[in-house]
This record gives sequence, structure tokens and C-alpha cells, in this order.
Amino acid sequence: MSTRQNDTNSVTQTNADDVTAALTDVLGPECVLCGEDIGERYFTNYGEAAGVRPLAVLRPRSVDEVSRALVICSAFAQPVVPQGGMTGLAGGAAPAAGEVVLSLERLSGVEEIDRHAATVTAWAGTTLQTIQEAVVDAGFTLGLDLGARGSCQIGGNVATNAGGNRVVRYGTTREQVLGLEVVLADGTVLSSLNKMLKNNAGYDLRQLFVGSEGTLGVVTRVVLRMHPRLAAPSTALCMTKDFQATLDLLHATRAALPDLLSFEAMWPAFYTFVAAHTPDVRAPQLVDGSFPVLLECAGSDAEETAVRFNATLERWLESELVVDAVVAQNAAEAQTFWTIREGLAIDSLPDLINFDVGVPHGGMEAFVVACERALKARWPDAHVFFFGHLGDSNLHLCVSAPYAQGESAHDVEAVVYEQVSDAGGCISAEHGIGVHKRAWLHCSRSREEIEAMHRLKRAFDPLDILNPGKVI
Amino acid sequence: MSTRQNDTNSVTQTNADDVTAALTDVLGPECVLCGEDIGERYFTNYGEAAGVRPLAVLRPRSVDEVSRALVICSAFAQPVVPQGGMTGLAGGAAPAAGEVVLSLERLSGVEEIDRHAATVTAWAGTTLQTIQEAVVDAGFTLGLDLGARGSCQIGGNVATNAGGNRVVRYGTTREQVLGLEVVLADGTVLSSLNKMLKNNAGYDLRQLFVGSEGTLGVVTRVVLRMHPRLAAPSTALCMTKDFQATLDLLHATRAALPDLLSFEAMWPAFYTFVAAHTPDVRAPQLVDGSFPVLLECAGSDAEETAVRFNATLERWLESELVVDAVVAQNAAEAQTFWTIREGLAIDSLPDLINFDVGVPHGGMEAFVVACERALKARWPDAHVFFFGHLGDSNLHLCVSAPYAQGESAHDVEAVVYEQVSDAGGCISAEHGIGVHKRAWLHCSRSREEIEAMHRLKRAFDPLDILNPGKVI
Repeated sequence: MSTRQNDTNSVTQTNADDVTAALTDVLGPECVLCGEDIGERYFTNYGEAAGVRPLAVLRPRSVDEVSRALVICSAFAQPVVPQGGMTGLAGGAAPAAGEVVLSLERLSGVEEIDRHAATVTAWAGTTLQTIQEAVVDAGFTLGLDLGARGSCQIGGNVATNAGGNRVVRYGTTREQVLGLEVVLADGTVLSSLNKMLKNNAGYDLRQLFVGSEGTLGVVTRVVLRMHPRLAAPSTALCMTKDFQATLDLLHATRAALPDLLSFEAMWPAFYTFVAAHTPDVRAPQLVDGSFPVLLECAGSDAEETAVRFNATLERWLESELVVDAVVAQNAAEAQTFWTIREGLAIDSLPDLINFDVGVPHGGMEAFVVACERALKARWPDAHVFFFGHLGDSNLHLCVSAPYAQGESAHDVEAVVYEQVSDAGGCISAEHGIGVHKRAWLHCSRSREEIEAMHRLKRAFDPLDILNPGKVI
Repeated sequence: MSTRQNDTNSVTQTNADDVTAALTDVLGPECVLCGEDIGERYFTNYGEAAGVRPLAVLRPRSVDEVSRALVICSAFAQPVVPQGGMTGLAGGAAPAAGEVVLSLERLSGVEEIDRHAATVTAWAGTTLQTIQEAVVDAGFTLGLDLGARGSCQIGGNVATNAGGNRVVRYGTTREQVLGLEVVLADGTVLSSLNKMLKNNAGYDLRQLFVGSEGTLGVVTRVVLRMHPRLAAPSTALCMTKDFQATLDLLHATRAALPDLLSFEAMWPAFYTFVAAHTPDVRAPQLVDGSFPVLLECAGSDAEETAVRFNATLERWLESELVVDAVVAQNAAEAQTFWTIREGLAIDSLPDLINFDVGVPHGGMEAFVVACERALKARWPDAHVFFFGHLGDSNLHLCVSAPYAQGESAHDVEAVVYEQVSDAGGCISAEHGIGVHKRAWLHCSRSREEIEAMHRLKRAFDPLDILNPGKVI
């Protein structure tokens, strides 16, 4: 055993029994699950059918154990899938047959809140919500928020560069990460737990690992910025006369309301369908032909925010930048607007495919029209809905198409991604590539870009053991 | 010639005449300067004595010419120093003997302003000020501003991840860069001219090149975000009772004034010295023992900003968070505050060394005390001044020490960087490593981090021809 453990350069014939024996030897049996002991949650993505049971599940209790596990896996050239809360939407944390899952769930908890530096340090397996609560208790706000907050883990948020509803204010996860501790494929622990807002001492290594979906290293610890505490938000459903006016509203909002928190657009067909199919929700009536936008602001003083918010909306109503606006009178009304925006009613449509694309604002309207036309030309009865984080040039697109014999989701994807490519957009704005979108990466990345990604992969994981077959 | 040009894998014996002949052959004589034709500005850093004349200066007119030049340099394993406005403070763009300078000065101009996407695309050799003016003309604001704006070039700003006075509001250059075009050492053109705020389609390659000081690739074109237009700012010189109160003020400002643009701290000794030695400037009198801070806010409406700014200052004066505040009544008064903050009076001190360090806020006060004590223990007559971008945990530190026989700047640096290391700080917050700080990189980066930087370097520049001897 000990010779193998030290012999990280030799790639021996993978032998399932030898690998699990070696891992058990180093981590102890309580940290290695095999066979029927492996629960379905370790191989089933959120919202998907059960996947393939992995060879083993490792549950290390320390960074050192993560490192030792990866030394073993390197020695055996054993593929490893780092795993967080399994809430990803691109299949990036699902194992293939024969792979070993490296769950970070036991590296959990908030390690430190530094009020002076305005930072929170947490272990990778901590749920986003746990961190959010600790940050609020300390009198601050976390810049990151998304629907899966109760289940997703911060290590996964970092690995996928998660977005969410507050990007227009705070940026993505990348902009929240000040420091990072990562274990490389060969077991090297790269500890860069920086707390400073600026650090130009050499290459900014953390950037490599944010958004690389566990293919370049395993995130074990994270230092995140904290932002000033937010008081209760002001929320409104605004209606503009068309998409162009909505873009104008976005620019006007950015200028006039520095405490803007969310700017969420819903194309009329989306709004109408969800409003009609969401029980117990009284959605405001859409002014004929208008384009609805959910606007939310929050600052340090709820009253001050509300005064500015309402005065600004009145000005916009007068200038007809906004044709109608319903301001939430309380948290329950605001929740109604968010319930519509979340659009769960759409989930019940058959053969649903959810896309997460980015399109530059200038070409977004043409993209929406062309994409819908191309889809309906082939599937005339398809439901096609658009909504999303307009402030971040991020569109979610839901397609429910009754496939003909022999057709599949792949055919729908081909139509959508061709349009994305034509519009100079990206095939994933926030969910990542994982396995689901890997075949389409060329639609928004050039041959040279993909080759440069391979250079990075070879430099940090020459044996291709970290989440192989994901991203590139 | 043509065989050599295509034979990028062979590393031939470098021969100065062969290299310049091959480069001249491909670029044309009007793009290659040699010998006495090379002006001093191509080998002399801003504020430093003249350096070493390089072998040649290349002045390509297109991305294709940059690529072809690098193919030749690769074939000859010829070291290349990418060069912008030569305003860097770490010697990162200065050539060594026998090196070839690759000046981006002819790749100049704003290529496109996209109002919908709120982006500006510019060639690497464009001065920052030219871009700022184009952005203002379009009704927006650029997030980046620094003193060298009239001379520095955006390619250099990106390569060094420049900071400046607005980082507390907009982040560093990294946060402004949406898209990037880079030529790799082997001549590959990596064009990622993304305009979207979010793009998770594979690894975020642009992050590699921002802040890598021309050692991983040559920046040729940049897409930057534009922010909403700023109206006239409100500016004040605030005095707090001590450093701790200044940190409290920072947190209070971030929460209460979302249109904060700058938060610049000056330690009392700095302020007093500069105020006394800057002719034609009437600096406000410092309240005894107090700590001065330059505060500036700007939003879309000057009146609205001023009202909030003044009301907030009054509240802070009442609560004694601020013990005195002088609000600039016009642009000239604001300029007075900035003139003091810029502290040019210090430049006349003998043997001056300027540091650009980062220290986490919690340890900053102790660092300042310990650093000054250590310096004065060895050089009792030294002048030691601290000031900087406190909002970014970035301290500038100026030391003028009368060296004894045999001592040098290196001895002063050793004392300061030991303190930085002890404080968990970084040896460069915004100026970069270049050549000047390369020997000290280990003071704020671990062995594992530096080794990871070498992995990147080997992956993207295996022949070590791009700015060799810089950063790592």
C-alpha cells in the first residue's frame, strides 16, 4: 500500500478492488461507501432520473484527507467526481460507471467571519443558506443568492460560478470569491485564503478554479466578501411598451437606482402562461401588448429606498418609459411577483428542455424572434417561453416540443444552439457545461479557445482524473 | 526564411541578425526599429533612469502582424517584451539586453461603442483617456481611472490588472473586462470578444491574461463594460478620531452611500507633510490627532448625490463617527483634496521607495505601527508615510531612508516585506510584480502557489519567450 501511495507517477491498471482497498486504508472505512451503501443522492442530479452507481463515495473530514485521497486516485489513474449539493443543472457532478465520488459534505461549516475585512470563510460543503444566515447574523449580506440555497453547497457554487438573482448588483460568484483553497489532482493543497480586495502578487490562481466545474481542482475552502446589510426591499412589476423600452428601462434603472438588486424580464407569453397556470396567485393583469419586468431594490434604509423607488417609478410613468407599474405593498405581494417569475407552472409541460443562454442585448430581440420561429417551423405545436436575468444578458428559454418518431431533445438543442451561435451568444450563461452541453461547446467557443482550455486541463490534471468528460 | 517561419517547434540558436532579418522580412522595415532608431522611450520606465536598448522594436499594425511576429520569435526562441505606455511601476515592460520589444502603439483606437450592451471595444494601444472620453461622449462612464490615464494604454492596464481610484465602486480592471483578444507565444490568436455580463461556457480564459503582465499572452483587443454616466461628484475631507473609527466609517459609507466612488485614507504624518510642502494649496487644518479621509460620491444626479452626501455627513458629525468634515464647495476645492492625496511633494525626498502593499483591514493598524517601528529602528531618520485606497485594503507606503555604506533599497524592502508577510498581506495590491518585486514574491505566495504559476507559464509559453524573468 505505502509504495503505491507514494508512487503518484505510475499509472497502474485500474482495479476496482485495489482502488477501494487503498482508499479505505488511507481514509478509514467510515469515509468510504461502496456498493449498496451508496445512496441514490450520490448519483442522481436534482430533477433527473437516477444515474449510475459509482464505484465508491469518499467522504473525507479534512483537507488533508482530500489530498491523500487524490494521491491514491492519481496513483491508480482513478477518475474522481467532486460533489456538492447535486443541484447543478448541467450534470457536472454525476458520476459515470467506475468513477469515484468525492463528496465534500463533511467539510462543512462557517469557519470565520471577519467583520473588519468584511469576509466570511467557509468549508466547501456548507450550504449557501447556512452561510447567508451567518452573514446576516453578523450584520452583513452575502452577494450570492439562488433558488437552491437550502441544498446547494458553496464549493459547488464556486466550481460552477453560480449566478442567481442578484448578479446585476453584486456580480457572479467569481466576484464574491476573495480567497480559495483547492486540492489539485496530484494531491497538492493550494491554499490562497486571501481576504484583500486587491492582490496583484503574481497570477490570480483562484480565477482558474472558479467555474471550472471540478475539472482542474477540488475546492475545499472559500473566502467570500460580505456586503452591507440590506433592509427590506422595494419590489414592483413594471410594464413597458416593448422589448426596446425594456432595454431603455434597464439603462435608466442602472443610472437612477444604485441599490438595484434584480431586473428580471418575462416575455409576454411566459407571463400569461404562468399567471394562468399558477394556483393561488393573483398576478397583475398585463396591459395589452406590454412587456413585464420584475424590479427590486434594497439598500441600508428601507424607507429611503422606497421613497426613491416610488418617485423614480412615477417619473417613468409620466415619461411613459413604463406604461404600468404595480408596487408590492408587502412581502407577500412581492413574493407573488417572484412566484410568477420563477415560473414553476412550466415544469409540468411534457418533454420540457430548459436552456440557459446568454445573448448580447443588441441582438436579443432578433434572437428571440428567430429562435421561436425556427422551433415552431419544425414543431408547430411547441410551447416556447423566454424569461431571465435581463440585467446580466442571460435568457432562460423553455421549450416543450412534441417530438416526432426518432427525434429527441438533441434535435431541439441543435435548433436553439444554432440560433445562439448566429447571435454571438453563449450556450451557458450561468449553469455551466457539465456533460449536458459538452457536445455544443463549439457553438460558442472557437477551436482556439477550446484548445486553450485543453492546455489548462493538461497542466493541472495531466492524467485526466478530475471529473473527466465534463466541460471539455 | 519560409522554412524557419513554419518551423515553430525547433529552437534555433538565437542570432540577432537572423532574428531581425526574419522579422523585417515578415513585418516590413517600417515596422521594425533597430539600433539608434530605437528611442529611449522604448527602454525607459516612467520615472526611472534609462534602461538597456533592446535588440529591436516591433510596431505591428494588425493582430495578424502580432501573430506573425510571435511565430518568428518562437522559431528563434527570441524573448519578447510586450509594451504599452511604459507607465508601469514594477518594471514589467522594460526590455533586457538582446530582447525584442513588441509595442502595441499602432493597434490603437476605439473600435466600437455598443450602447445596448453597454460595452466599448478598443485596441490594446489606445490610451485610457481616449477610451474614457469616447465612453463619456456616448453617455456612459468607464469604471477605470488612474493618474497615468493620458499615457497608459488599455492593453497594459489589462496586463497589469490596474486599480486606481474607483475600485471601491467598480472593482479593478479585471471586473471591467468582458472580452479579450490575446495572441499566444506560438502565434495563436485567441479571440474571446465577449460582450455578455455572464458567460459560463467553459473555462473563463480571459482571467488568465488579466494581471499576468504579458507573460502568458499579448493583449491586442479589449471589450470593457460601460457604467451609467456620472454627474458632478460630491467630495469631502473627513476626519475621524483614529484608524479604528476610519474602518467604521468605511463600513458605514459602504452601507449608506451606494454611489461611493473613492475612499482614500491618509495617515496623519502623510497629510501634515504634504500639506506643508505643497505650494499653492490651502489644505484644511487637521483636528488634533485626527485621521483624514478623502470621500467622494457620484451618481446620475449631482443634486440628489449632494443632498444625501451632506445629510449623511451631518448625521456622522452628530454621532461623532466623524469629528470634522470639509465639503468641497466646487471642483477647485475638490481638486485641492486630491492634490494632497496624490502627495507629489513626497517625490522630492531622497532615495525614495514607493510600496504598494495590501493588508487585511483587521491587521492594518498593527502593520503600520510595526512597519514604521522596524524601519525607524534601523534608519532613525527615515521618513515613513502611509496612505492609500483603504476601501480596497491597499496601502501605499513611501520610505525615504538615508542608507549607510553598503546598504541599498533592497535592505529597506526586506524590512517592509517581512512585515507584510507577518501581516498576511500581499507585496503588490495593484502595481504588479514585474522585475522589481520578483525576488519578494515568496513573501506573499506559497511554494505551491508559485509552482502552480509555473505550470501556467509552461502551458502557455513553453519556450519562455514572453516577457521572461518577469513575475515568476
